[in-house]
Order: sequence, then structure tokens, then C-alpha cells
Amino acid sequence: MNKILLAHGGGGALTDKLIKEEILKRLGNSLLTPLEDSAVFNIGNKRLAFTTDSFVVKPLFFPGGDIGKLSVCGTVNDLSVAGAIPLYLSLSLIIEEGFSVEKLQKIILSIEETTKEAGVFVVTGDTKVVEKGGADEIFINTSGIGVIEYESPLSLSRAKEGDKIIINGYVADHGISVLLQRSGMEVDLPVHSDVAPLNGLVRDILNSSKYIRCLKDPTRGGVAGALNEIATSSSAGIIIFEENLPIRKEVKAACNLLGFDPFTIANEGKVIVICPEEEAEKVLSAMRRNSLGRLSVIIGEVVNTNNGKVLVKTPIGGMRILERPYGENFPRIC
Amino acid sequence: MNKILLAHGGGGALTDKLIKEEILKRLGNSLLTPLEDSAVFNIGNKRLAFTTDSFVVKPLFFPGGDIGKLSVCGTVNDLSVAGAIPLYLSLSLIIEEGFSVEKLQKIILSIEETTKEAGVFVVTGDTKVVEKGGADEIFINTSGIGVIEYESPLSLSRAKEGDKIIINGYVADHGISVLLQRSGMEVDLPVHSDVAPLNGLVRDILNSSKYIRCLKDPTRGGVAGALNEIATSSSAGIIIFEENLPIRKEVKAACNLLGFDPFTIANEGKVIVICPEEEAEKVLSAMRRNSLGRLSVIIGEVVNTNNGKVLVKTPIGGMRILERPYGENFPRIC
Repeated sequence: MNKILLAHGGGGALTDKLIKEEILKRLGNSLLTPLEDSAVFNIGNKRLAFTTDSFVVKPLFFPGGDIGKLSVCGTVNDLSVAGAIPLYLSLSLIIEEGFSVEKLQKIILSIEETTKEAGVFVVTGDTKVVEKGGADEIFINTSGIGVIEYESPLSLSRAKEGDKIIINGYVADHGISVLLQRSGMEVDLPVHSDVAPLNGLVRDILNSSKYIRCLKDPTRGGVAGALNEIATSSSAGIIIFEENLPIRKEVKAACNLLGFDPFTIANEGKVIVICPEEEAEKVLSAMRRNSLGRLSVIIGEVVNTNNGKVLVKTPIGGMRILERPYGENFPRIC
Repeated sequence: MNKILLAHGGGGALTDKLIKEEILKRLGNSLLTPLEDSAVFNIGNKRLAFTTDSFVVKPLFFPGGDIGKLSVCGTVNDLSVAGAIPLYLSLSLIIEEGFSVEKLQKIILSIEETTKEAGVFVVTGDTKVVEKGGADEIFINTSGIGVIEYESPLSLSRAKEGDKIIINGYVADHGISVLLQRSGMEVDLPVHSDVAPLNGLVRDILNSSKYIRCLKDPTRGGVAGALNEIATSSSAGIIIFEENLPIRKEVKAACNLLGFDPFTIANEGKVIVICPEEEAEKVLSAMRRNSLGRLSVIIGEVVNTNNGKVLVKTPIGGMRILERPYGENFPRIC
């Protein structure tokens, strides 16, 4: 390998390889190396979470959202799944010369609305402009800081045999809506991105049980990527019941048409919850009372066989291995 | 204005206008609106600083440094001038498809060396890849968190009549070395970027006096930009003695040749210190004992006339107004 490939940015196995071989080898430390969604550390008497994400989504505006909303939700959600209450965001813009000020205004308005919805503040920022052709319209980085009050540690490595796996609703809406928008396909599908700040829903989840093991937002790499990360980190097996996975029929149809596995498609308003079996009903009820969790459902469980693997039980009773995506289905989804 | 111009990214008056009109109007709050180098807030029993910077420097490698070193120093220095001890950095890469893995390795090595020099840790990250032509090689964002132990508040708004203005050495080395490298001009000038982590020097400054008013790194917009920000924020006048400003004769020659005012050229290893007159000698001695401050010198003072203006007293005794740069001399300097 001597050139970076698009697939290195897919959030799958190839991204993982790049990060491990080129970045962790030199920069690894006890906070970075676990590759959780946020770094978690104590400063003074508080436990903090710190995370960063750059957004290069194309097109900038898509049904259900835009790069501004995405850039707030992405970081709010990465803090949330670390069990943190998101407080402060940074906002850094890289803008291509000639970019429309009207588009910038729409993006900033969207950031304003989303920060208000999430109850967070942009407190520091940076603006760079590169010459025409030096970037594609606009890239946004947000980093964020949150405070963790939840006592039990949340980690991708804590899934245990018997645990239930819950998701808060329809999968694959984000990836499919961006893809359809980008393709310019004249499809009349009412598919909108699910992009949403999940901190309120996560607060409800954490208030419902003291024993949550792990939260994970299945973004790049989709549910398949997230579950494989958990199975690997926890050295556990995971079984998913395909018929339980909530998916809109339009999205399923689009996936079939385009040859995509909906398990691998990015979500931006979903959270996977892993909790002990005896906590599952309490957690589910709490989630269903939140408007972003009305369709919450148990989609699978953690098992003590096939460690490190994710298996899908099909409606007719067969089993297939759900691989971690290697590269990506399509770039620039977030 | 309906298009973003390169000059909007120059860190001068036009950047300021863009930020105030398009960003602060919607996202402004008590932490963001002062536009200091870092946001400063309390969490628990600690006072924290939080900052972000995206780096788009071209070329990626230049005499004295590269985008990796720059991306660590930029954020370490922004935290340092807030009076913070830098602790943790995030690292987010936007890479163009086809980028050389060998170049990436050199950049990551440089990040490793610089984080070690500065005593900070990269604790969270993100990697995105965009298609060929979608970005120019690589852009890096770093954000950072530091802890403030210094009791007196440091702020651009605290300069007072009689205060002395100190700088730690030669100006304009960074901007000129990047520019010469980019131009491919066959000039045989021994000019290297001054890029360096300033947290050690700042620690020595803060240990030397309890009464420092303000620290500021004169990056984009140079010394002219930094001093104008201070004069405006403090509603004070500033007088600079041109003959005291340390500048290498090669750099001065290059500026003369190219028609640049060295006061407006970016630095990446310089700090401007404003302190009461009676503290200045103590501060200077402490600075001169640090290898990055050996050439520290008083370059001017704060006055109670010409509020909001920066005046330069020329060697022959004339006075000229030093304007805040409007756009920028050349883009992509950091």
C-alpha cells in the first residue's frame, strides 16, 4: 500500500488497518488506543469525554438534514454514547474560495437550530479558506467536551453473554437518503436522513438502568460495523434476529435495488444499547417514551460462542456471518 | 458579498467581518463572542481552556517544519496563550484519495515528535478520505484541552496604559519560509519557519510574574493583526518601536523584495506578552533563560492615546499607523 484509497475512509476494516498501522503505532496511548467514540479522562473532580469528527458529506444538503446539522449531531452523539452530557463544541470550517455565502448562512442556521435542540454551545472556532478547486465546497470539523455522571463504565469491551441488544428505530435511512440525493435518481421515495442529537434519548436510557454495558452509534460502517467492533472488543459472539431489525420498506427496496446490505449503511440518529437481559424491559420502556425511541426493539443478544463474530439469524432460520465492512459502499456519507 | 473570498481566510479584518456577521450573529454566546484564542470555562473544580484549528498549509513540508508539527504547535500555542497547560489533543485528518502513504507517515512522525516535545497526548481522532480532486492532499484539524492554574485572568482586553509589550524573537520567519518554499524561487536564504510549541516558554513567563495581562501568538495577520486585536479589545493605544522589532536581515530583504510588511507576516513560534512596566524586567529575564526566548525584547508599550490604534515609531522618529491586515498577503500559510 503506497496510496490512500477512498476505502480507507469508510470506517470499516481498512480504516481500522490504516489507523492501527500508521497512527496508533506512533501516537498510541492508553486513551487513544481503545478507539472508542470519545476519549474519557478525569480532570480535577470530573470525568470528561472528548471527541472529534470531520464532516465531508456530499451533497451538503439532503432530505432530513445538511452538513451543519450532521456536524453537531455527530459530535453530540459520540459524546452521548460515551455516557457524557455534551456541553461545549468547537467549530472549524474549511471553505473553498467562491463558496456561496447563502449556503454558508443555511449551514450556520442549521448549526444554530441543532445546538439549541441539543442544548450545547459552540465556544471556539476557526475559519480557513482554500483556493477554488482546493476543497469541495465546505468541510466542517467539530470537537466536543462532555461530562460523565454515569457511574458504571460504558465500553465496547463490556458486552457479556446473555446481554440484550436494542436499537431505537429504523436503520439505513441516512445513508440511503444521502445516496439517492447524490445520485440525482428520480426516485420518489419518502426517505429522510435520521440525523438527530441523541443526548436526550441517552439521558433517558442511562436514567432507566445503572447497568448499561455499552452504547454505540452505528454511523459509517452501519450496524454491521458497530456490532463487529463490539464483538471484537468484548471477545464475545453476537446474534442478530434479522426479522426484528426495523427497516422501512422503501429503504429495504432501495437497498435491494442498489445491491447494498442495510446492515452496512450509515445511520446518524441511531444508538445500539447493550444491557443485561434483566434490565432490557426497563430500558426499552424508557426509550419508547422518548420521541426518538418510539420504535425501540431488541434486535439480538450476546452469546458465548463464535467469539468476535456477528451472526444474523434469517427469518427462515438460517445463519449468516455479518462481516465488518472492509472499505465502504460509497464515500462522503458524513 | 455573495461568495467567499480567499481573503476571508486571512485572519484579518475580512475574516473578522465574516465571523461576526455570519457566525456570531447566530452562534454567539459569552464564551465564543470574545473571539479569544481559546474558550475558557469551569468544569467541576478546574478552569479549562478549549481551542480548535484546521491546517491547510501549502506546501505540506517547508524549511523548519511541516503540517504535522504545525497542527500540534498551533493548538498547543492557542491553549498556552490562554494561560493553560495543554494536556490533550484531538487529531482529525481529511485526506485526498491517492495521497502518498509515505508522506502521511512523515506527517504522523512529525506529530509524534512534536507531541513528545510539548508533553501532550493525542487522545481521540477521525479520518476521512475524499475523492481525488476533492481536497488538496491533506487537511488536519486539531482541537485541544488544557488546564488553567494561573490565577490572574489573561485577556486581549486587559492591556493598560504603561504596560510593556515583549516578543520572544525574530518575526516573519514562518510566513516567509512557507512562501519561498511554495514559490519555488531559487533563493538561497537560510530562512526556516519558527514553528515551535510555546507551552514551556509560557510556563516560564507565568511563573515569573503574577501580573501578566495578556499573551497572544501572532499567527495569521502577524504582529500587526495581534496588536490591533489587543488595542481594539482593550480600548487602548499601542506604540511599537520599529528599531526594536527583531527581524533577520534575510527575512527583511525578502519582505522588501516581495513588497510585504513583516509586521503582517505569520509566525508560529512567537508570543507577544503584555505586562505592567514594573514586571517587565523579571519577565524578560525568565524568557531569556528559555531556549525559545533568548532574543526576547521589549518592542513597545501601551498608551492612553489613539485608543484602538497601533502606531509604529520609525527609527528616524516618524510615526505611522499599523493597520490590521484586511485580507491576507497569501493564503494557506497555516
